[in-house]
Amino acid sequence: MLFTDFGSADIYVGQVKAVLHRLAPQATVIDLAHDLPPFNVRAAAHLLDALKNAFPEGSVFLCVVDPGVGTDRGTAVLEADSRCYVGPDNGLLSVVAARATAVKLSSIAWRPAGLSDSFHGRDLFAPVVARIAAATLPPDQLRPLPALATSFGADDLEEIIYVDHYGNACTGIRAARAPRDTALVAGGRRIDHVRVFGDVPQGAALWHENSHGMVEIAVNCGSAAETLQLCVGEPVSWAG
Amino acid sequence: MLFTDFGSADIYVGQVKAVLHRLAPQATVIDLAHDLPPFNVRAAAHLLDALKNAFPEGSVFLCVVDPGVGTDRGTAVLEADSRCYVGPDNGLLSVVAARATAVKLSSIAWRPAGLSDSFHGRDLFAPVVARIAAATLPPDQLRPLPALATSFGADDLEEIIYVDHYGNACTGIRAARAPRDTALVAGGRRIDHVRVFGDVPQGAALWHENSHGMVEIAVNCGSAAETLQLCVGEPVSWAG
Amino acid sequence: MLFTDFGSADIYVGQVKAVLHRLAPQATVIDLAHDLPPFNVRAAAHLLDALKNAFPEGSVFLCVVDPGVGTDRGTAVLEADSRCYVGPDNGLLSVVAARATAVKLSSIAWRPAGLSDSFHGRDLFAPVVARIAAATLPPDQLRPLPALATSFGADDLEEIIYVDHYGNACTGIRAARAPRDTALVAGGRRIDHVRVFGDVPQGAALWHENSHGMVEIAVNCGSAAETLQLCVGEPVSWAG
Repeated sequence: MLFTDFGSADIYVGQVKAVLHRLAPQATVIDLAHDLPPFNVRAAAHLLDALKNAFPEGSVFLCVVDPGVGTDRGTAVLEADSRCYVGPDNGLLSVVAARATAVKLSSIAWRPAGLSDSFHGRDLFAPVVARIAAATLPPDQLRPLPALATSFGADDLEEIIYVDHYGNACTGIRAARAPRDTALVAGGRRIDHVRVFGDVPQGAALWHENSHGMVEIAVNCGSAAETLQLCVGEPVSWAG
Repeated sequence: MLFTDFGSADIYVGQVKAVLHRLAPQATVIDLAHDLPPFNVRAAAHLLDALKNAFPEGSVFLCVVDPGVGTDRGTAVLEADSRCYVGPDNGLLSVVAARATAVKLSSIAWRPAGLSDSFHGRDLFAPVVARIAAATLPPDQLRPLPALATSFGADDLEEIIYVDHYGNACTGIRAARAPRDTALVAGGRRIDHVRVFGDVPQGAALWHENSHGMVEIAVNCGSAAETLQLCVGEPVSWAG
Repeated sequence: MLFTDFGSADIYVGQVKAVLHRLAPQATVIDLAHDLPPFNVRAAAHLLDALKNAFPEGSVFLCVVDPGVGTDRGTAVLEADSRCYVGPDNGLLSVVAARATAVKLSSIAWRPAGLSDSFHGRDLFAPVVARIAAATLPPDQLRPLPALATSFGADDLEEIIYVDHYGNACTGIRAARAPRDTALVAGGRRIDHVRVFGDVPQGAALWHENSHGMVEIAVNCGSAAETLQLCVGEPVSWAG
């Protein structure tokens, strides 16, 4: 499972897949997301936790939103609730880690010969992901990590964390704990809950539980992002 | 074959593929189109008919352009001329059905335990597509359907149905029946037929038979959509 | 390996993959790039040479940036340093050819029955690529080609050849021969070399050796393309 800000339309994903195919030819590679808002590690960390359950136990996630590539930020391999996540130790894996019941943390001790300064996704993380998936990773290539260097914690994030191409604006609030009878406030507007888009007229705003269990702001047959001027990072709150 | 408006750059296609891989690990999954104009079922229905022949007999198409998801719109499984199509019963499959010589229609009787309100592509249609492809669909999960609830009919559609990233504007008119010596009128302009782009100067407009057999408006080394201000839904007609 | 200007979000790549899967079901197909600037053959030729090494020996590349499709431009099959490239003979393969140590050139003698006028990628090049990958190409389908009809030569190209989705602007200058202590001039600005983005403040411009070995202009946590108004084709030069 690839979860990156590399851009699905760009030249980076193919290079990562070439590495994965060479080192783990039997593995199935699925693109989960490649168009995360560049550099927004916190939002990506919450989205990763929201999306992970769509993928089967045993999945290995290559996770890269990495503004600090080439600096001395660490690396992390997280085993959590039967799934495995590999990426920079910059908080990206920290929401999954903070909410998981069983967690094992490592950092990557191995470094490849020709490590580039700007593409650790291809040169460092992809080989480790491939060898984990193929069960060929020498144990000494990992080193126990007592704790993540950066953690955003387990709490919900009362912000927009993702805007999809329809213009639906997903928040970092898990819907299971959200009060259905309370309006959400975003972009200066009060927005009521409905179950499905069709419960409001075309063009009207709503909040609903989206398909990955998060509170999401939408407009029936329209774009919430445009209508309400919402973008990633915009705060949301519950009406008083 | 995946034919959706989920957005190739978005987070939905990967979740669908995870389901397909789990239930039909041997199947080859190919992305046909994911960036159909959102909510435009009629244009998508004509495009699906135009593109289906690029895929071999036996192909199973997951088709989702579904503004009515979560309402009581029905579902459809269409077997037509050795290919199979699964999607909402909102007209999306109706152009293929109306033009096919041999048709078998069903609806989906099965419902999954955790059906989301907004992502039937992942929760309902993908499992059915996977089980059809893997030949593991219990027969009682389908129910005979006498006719589609919504049908756009077999006639050509004299509108722009798709604009590609070069700016070529595909109409819903099949080229086999189009008069080569007649100009097309679109965006207030008369446009003559040529066989290949290079038959007109750079920057000039033309209509030609495109690679999937449709009448298409193009500009040599340029964008017809920009030059002629064409977008999906724009009417076209034959010059008097 | 697919290297085209077909658009990753568009309907063309899927049709090519259907052909590849039919004729070479065992082959692994990886998307290298589909969003090359349309019609810019020279920039694509330099980018192809820069990216080829990320893919293993034995790889077969389907290469299509083809503004002359449907005219009488020739075709080329290039075997160079254990990789193979198939595409139009319009210069696209010429930078790889000019820099390779061992080169074998052919043109495609075979033509398919239903060759479209505008989609040789699907109808002509994809079948040849698939049969080369599957080792099922009849030898008489190729014809020796003494030289490419169009060649851009082996020299570096002092222009922007690619802008990625972060806004990084890759030049056609190979970094191995670039003087680290010399500023680059682009968009009327002098830009100094650093090793990693983090070596300059956020928002500052830099040039560095990118992950495929080219001189690239970037802005730390920002977009060089926006900040410096750079686009493909913009000339760059070394400061006096």
